[in-house]
Amino acid sequence: MVTKQVNGLSEGDADLRRADSLAREIFSDVANKWALLIIEALGERTLRFTVLRDEVEGVSHKMLTQNLRMLERNGLVERRVHPTVPPRVEYTLTESGRALRATVDAMCDWTHRYIADIETARRRFDD
Amino acid sequence: MVTKQVNGLSEGDADLRRADSLAREIFSDVANKWALLIIEALGERTLRFTVLRDEVEGVSHKMLTQNLRMLERNGLVERRVHPTVPPRVEYTLTESGRALRATVDAMCDWTHRYIADIETARRRFDD
Repeated sequence: MVTKQVNGLSEGDADLRRADSLAREIFSDVANKWALLIIEALGERTLRFTVLRDEVEGVSHKMLTQNLRMLERNGLVERRVHPTVPPRVEYTLTESGRALRATVDAMCDWTHRYIADIETARRRFDD
Repeated sequence: MVTKQVNGLSEGDADLRRADSLAREIFSDVANKWALLIIEALGERTLRFTVLRDEVEGVSHKMLTQNLRMLERNGLVERRVHPTVPPRVEYTLTESGRALRATVDAMCDWTHRYIADIETARRRFDD
């Protein structure tokens, strides 16, 4: 790697810091319950907005729109508009979206595995 | 399993629905960036509040307090108060917290693995 000193920092350092800050930004985008529940609901399927809204329990129209837009911007979800009247809009996970889904699955498994422990802890804490 | 019909639903069904709703509640608690970043920062260590605040970049005093309380309530974090003057308060992940950390690690790995794809997708979307 060719590095150049700029204000005492090499370009390599600057690249690393930039990548680190971008990674944090991406993590902040996706690490929210609605984004993760949308990814989980899509799974291997292609779904219309209205179907997705029914599948993600409790999500508002606004939250679903915002998160789908964020997921599309990050390239995790592909949005396809079919030129029908009215237009049919469908969403599918991309390769990176499906890869993230594996970690969401692991988080869901964790929830079910520790549900009894968590319930006991909550009862103790609330008493 | 002994089941009893109550309003057309067996007790078994009611138990399942209750577990399902509890699992969703737990998922909603932990699937937020501050909770996940706190879990990641703690790792295998025992840390004081002030050290933890320095480790979790950008977290406010209020967000750290709220999330530590939530994690303690769910039994993911153990809070220990040492009777010094002033009292020293330390936090450590429990077994369930460490198990969740494995999924957070996977999410961080995912971020780094797809960072270039995500950057390209963002550039295309923003244009």
